[in-house]
Amino acid sequence: MKVGVVGAGAVGAATVLSLVERGGMCREIVLVDKAAERAAGVATDMRYAAPLSPVVDVRAGGYQDLDDAALVIITAGVNEKTGGATDRSDPQGRLRLLDTNAKVYADVVPRIVAVAPHAVLMVVTDPPDPLADLTRHLARHDRVFSTGTLIDSLRFRVHLADRLRVRPLDVHAMVVGEHGTSEVLLWSSAEMGGIPVLDLLDDGEQPLDAVRAEVEESIRYANITIIEGTGASQYGIGAVSARLAEAVLRDERAALPVAAYNPGFDVTLSLVSVLGAGGVIEMHQPRMTPEERAALDRSVSTLRDATRRALAAVDQ
Amino acid sequence: MKVGVVGAGAVGAATVLSLVERGGMCREIVLVDKAAERAAGVATDMRYAAPLSPVVDVRAGGYQDLDDAALVIITAGVNEKTGGATDRSDPQGRLRLLDTNAKVYADVVPRIVAVAPHAVLMVVTDPPDPLADLTRHLARHDRVFSTGTLIDSLRFRVHLADRLRVRPLDVHAMVVGEHGTSEVLLWSSAEMGGIPVLDLLDDGEQPLDAVRAEVEESIRYANITIIEGTGASQYGIGAVSARLAEAVLRDERAALPVAAYNPGFDVTLSLVSVLGAGGVIEMHQPRMTPEERAALDRSVSTLRDATRRALAAVDQ
Amino acid sequence: MKVGVVGAGAVGAATVLSLVERGGMCREIVLVDKAAERAAGVATDMRYAAPLSPVVDVRAGGYQDLDDAALVIITAGVNEKTGGATDRSDPQGRLRLLDTNAKVYADVVPRIVAVAPHAVLMVVTDPPDPLADLTRHLARHDRVFSTGTLIDSLRFRVHLADRLRVRPLDVHAMVVGEHGTSEVLLWSSAEMGGIPVLDLLDDGEQPLDAVRAEVEESIRYANITIIEGTGASQYGIGAVSARLAEAVLRDERAALPVAAYNPGFDVTLSLVSVLGAGGVIEMHQPRMTPEERAALDRSVSTLRDATRRALAAVDQ
Amino acid sequence: MKVGVVGAGAVGAATVLSLVERGGMCREIVLVDKAAERAAGVATDMRYAAPLSPVVDVRAGGYQDLDDAALVIITAGVNEKTGGATDRSDPQGRLRLLDTNAKVYADVVPRIVAVAPHAVLMVVTDPPDPLADLTRHLARHDRVFSTGTLIDSLRFRVHLADRLRVRPLDVHAMVVGEHGTSEVLLWSSAEMGGIPVLDLLDDGEQPLDAVRAEVEESIRYANITIIEGTGASQYGIGAVSARLAEAVLRDERAALPVAAYNPGFDVTLSLVSVLGAGGVIEMHQPRMTPEERAALDRSVSTLRDATRRALAAVDQ
Repeated sequence: MKVGVVGAGAVGAATVLSLVERGGMCREIVLVDKAAERAAGVATDMRYAAPLSPVVDVRAGGYQDLDDAALVIITAGVNEKTGGATDRSDPQGRLRLLDTNAKVYADVVPRIVAVAPHAVLMVVTDPPDPLADLTRHLARHDRVFSTGTLIDSLRFRVHLADRLRVRPLDVHAMVVGEHGTSEVLLWSSAEMGGIPVLDLLDDGEQPLDAVRAEVEESIRYANITIIEGTGASQYGIGAVSARLAEAVLRDERAALPVAAYNPGFDVTLSLVSVLGAGGVIEMHQPRMTPEERAALDRSVSTLRDATRRALAAVDQ
Repeated sequence: MKVGVVGAGAVGAATVLSLVERGGMCREIVLVDKAAERAAGVATDMRYAAPLSPVVDVRAGGYQDLDDAALVIITAGVNEKTGGATDRSDPQGRLRLLDTNAKVYADVVPRIVAVAPHAVLMVVTDPPDPLADLTRHLARHDRVFSTGTLIDSLRFRVHLADRLRVRPLDVHAMVVGEHGTSEVLLWSSAEMGGIPVLDLLDDGEQPLDAVRAEVEESIRYANITIIEGTGASQYGIGAVSARLAEAVLRDERAALPVAAYNPGFDVTLSLVSVLGAGGVIEMHQPRMTPEERAALDRSVSTLRDATRRALAAVDQ
Repeated sequence: MKVGVVGAGAVGAATVLSLVERGGMCREIVLVDKAAERAAGVATDMRYAAPLSPVVDVRAGGYQDLDDAALVIITAGVNEKTGGATDRSDPQGRLRLLDTNAKVYADVVPRIVAVAPHAVLMVVTDPPDPLADLTRHLARHDRVFSTGTLIDSLRFRVHLADRLRVRPLDVHAMVVGEHGTSEVLLWSSAEMGGIPVLDLLDDGEQPLDAVRAEVEESIRYANITIIEGTGASQYGIGAVSARLAEAVLRDERAALPVAAYNPGFDVTLSLVSVLGAGGVIEMHQPRMTPEERAALDRSVSTLRDATRRALAAVDQ
Repeated sequence: MKVGVVGAGAVGAATVLSLVERGGMCREIVLVDKAAERAAGVATDMRYAAPLSPVVDVRAGGYQDLDDAALVIITAGVNEKTGGATDRSDPQGRLRLLDTNAKVYADVVPRIVAVAPHAVLMVVTDPPDPLADLTRHLARHDRVFSTGTLIDSLRFRVHLADRLRVRPLDVHAMVVGEHGTSEVLLWSSAEMGGIPVLDLLDDGEQPLDAVRAEVEESIRYANITIIEGTGASQYGIGAVSARLAEAVLRDERAALPVAAYNPGFDVTLSLVSVLGAGGVIEMHQPRMTPEERAALDRSVSTLRDATRRALAAVDQ
């Protein structure tokens, strides 16, 4: 069970550390970076952590070492900070990020596919959804998914769980659409123990709209706290990537909000995706209110534009 | 089971991620840093990874939030790179590092002890052994240990295991003395399955001295690879710190090469230390050849000088 | 973190093996049985498995060894087979079982409470819900819960997941009321990824009522398969008990269908119960259709009768 | 990663529960028993425990369902109790056990090999070493090993660790030769942290010979306690089997005292065996005193006789 990680930056390193510490199905990790000495430094450091966990080999390598990988996780590219987008809501900054990373992918993906044609490809680099769509085109196959809105869904669940005073695992709530500003929080189907979260939060003291606004604000504020504190989200997304690797390697058929190409929407977006050995095997459309559905349509438009731009950036 | 982590730099963050992902006995993690927004950023980022592991709360806090902590892990201070010591073998650089971090500890330790007088204290900051000795003086109790030579022992074991083609866990080999250049690799008692490693490596093809030199060179080269690649060791030592936290929280009575104050040597050094709920409960002196024993004595001298210097740096 | 297990029969032994293998928060297990040599045999056998998992001590003991236990799991009593109830639907057999085990509890619970007055008590013996109600009376405190309908809910989820071709963890479906023939499968709130299971199963090929009937039949048939194959359910319920122990020891605040005394219904029954360090902290009433609500009311009646009978059996 | 378990008795069931609860590399478990309803009962019961652990499918099946299994664990046969050997030291009873189980293996092994020709075969049934030798002949390949003296080594380590007041994992001590009365406890190489156990136990209070005798007595007494309490060892050996399955599935190259055919001794016996994807890959001979070596030679004689008898029982 070999996993490749392309990109040895902060997110790539957090992914590898999480893979090692979780001790899941992963038996071998190959870390590739255009700065070979960075990959070597991270892999060597990590190697000495490995004996504290179930047996796993960690090493730096070139693209040729990705042969036989069951999964390749791509974290290469610039992030919002190094890419010049200091503000997540700055549309220009985000588009520049997309252009830059599309070019990185145009370089990286064909090299991966040349040596590991059967590997599932997981896209982590921001913005993950159009980059995953681009990856499909570059790879000429559909075993491609992105981390999508799983991290956003975890944030939603953590803040709901705080209010409901239960562990986050028992709050079932999803964010769908784009991993980005157009994402859609599915309040209507959020539930805990078969009880709608909106019923549980409706305690008669505070208007429900105010409660909703506060939860959404908490999520937004958390993102700002992370960026101000460390420059960019890395630990949460690293753990998410390692968790998704488990779902693929173990052929879990886990139902998760990750993004894959959906023929109905003709774009890569997060819905209820069933993730297993071959990547996303099935996608289900969640139940939505008309407002949620309209918001999803807007998110789809944003994603289609972004994908077009990613393809254009690469064609030039 | 509350654990405090003081210092939210690269090592502190890797420690928290490892604690979360390992899913051990730790139920609550409080991260403290003099740059409060850095601690907040790391903790917030990590919080969203937590639902993927057994329930654990991660949050940033002040010293007052360390009350009732069973264990406080101290990673605060500068590292070799940021402390100006670009080369591990540069004695001046290492001494400057000690002076600087001793002053950091003089500030940090009394604050911890004031709020968490019963907590075990784990010292991770470089150089860990004299800083642990200093911490004993500052804390006025003996529930203090450092990560010592566990990471060095893991390196020794990994490189021996490579040669013996078995997993590192089954090679029993220890490094004792200082975590630093005077450390002593105990070749004479290194064994695998009850067979001396020196017998197993003596294949009649290469002189044993050459094999030993190559293994020692591999370890040294690995360290250079890490520093050149990422600036400083962080992932391995983070995983080690999380593992040691488990041994304390679970009251494991694990026999490990970590450093504590030893009355016989009158200094904090790594021997065979039994680690449990109260920190290091017992220390055993390994079997050594006369050469190993002499090397340990030299390491003890180095440590005594360093501890004296640490105490002096704080007295001024 | 000490856990007591009272009753070293098949279920007690499966619980201990699961506790050891899961490697959770449990540090010490004390196994008590009226047949002391049985407890000694099981504990001794298990002891040699322990070094393969995170450190845990397993030993046989008397009631006095339960002091300081955070949790005591009670599996003592006869089961349906040894108790003479060969058929789960034989009402006379089930009542005899209740009478017999009520008397066992009248003997066992006061001994536990005398030595471990602060321990949470988990009732596993069949029928668990009236025995838990009885245990409250005997213990004179409310830190009592039973495994309730968690095992039934797992069965429901496993068979739904089979049909939906996803892993069971992602199907959220609950059984509430009695752990027994009056239990209520909450079809209306069963969902996967925010989508009602009834929508997902409605594929236009088979009438939905037929699908429901088949799923319910699968659950019933599974129970018969277990009893015919091994005499009594033991491995599933052992794993459930170990899992619930984790939720208590780690103070998880997990929302699970386990049974506790509910003042609204004035009986011990399974609803959406929040389980943490003190036992069941909160109970939520799930959303139900009028039919489900009526079925729950019938289940409550059954449970009240059973509790009355259990109390009467003990009074005599 | 499919694992087959042949034999759904107490040991087979404990093995499956341990495999499920450990959550290792195993993705699918097929349980086969000549009493199909017993296998069905155990597998069905276990199935509902599975959602509490990493995804794994458990089902009962026939031999044909073992196709593509990476590993088949054989626990079929009678045990000392049901086989009529009430006393482990009764030589006649043990020989009858061997004859009976050899015939079971003559039936079972060819069926396994016919459908899973590439699977590694792990022999758990008593006496495991001659049955493993027989299995090699029946399977006509060498990917066969038995659980050998790992359980004996764990007992040795647990009782030494008790005396040394450290966790058993840190005591390195092995039993080699036969899993049976001729087994050899390697006192001379037993160590903790590079220190000979005999040095650590030599406290000047009790003669070392008396200490050794007491430890050996503890091991013997433990075995009697298990047999008197539950009829036969099952939980420890089940956990051992699950742990060994991990070593094979993960290709760990773990160095463990398990038994495989050794050309030097021309019999299947436990030495220091390196266990990975293909079974036992290498065997090392531990360092022994002349007395230990003589005892090993006697154990080898016993094993050769037993193997001859097993082959003869099958030829008739």
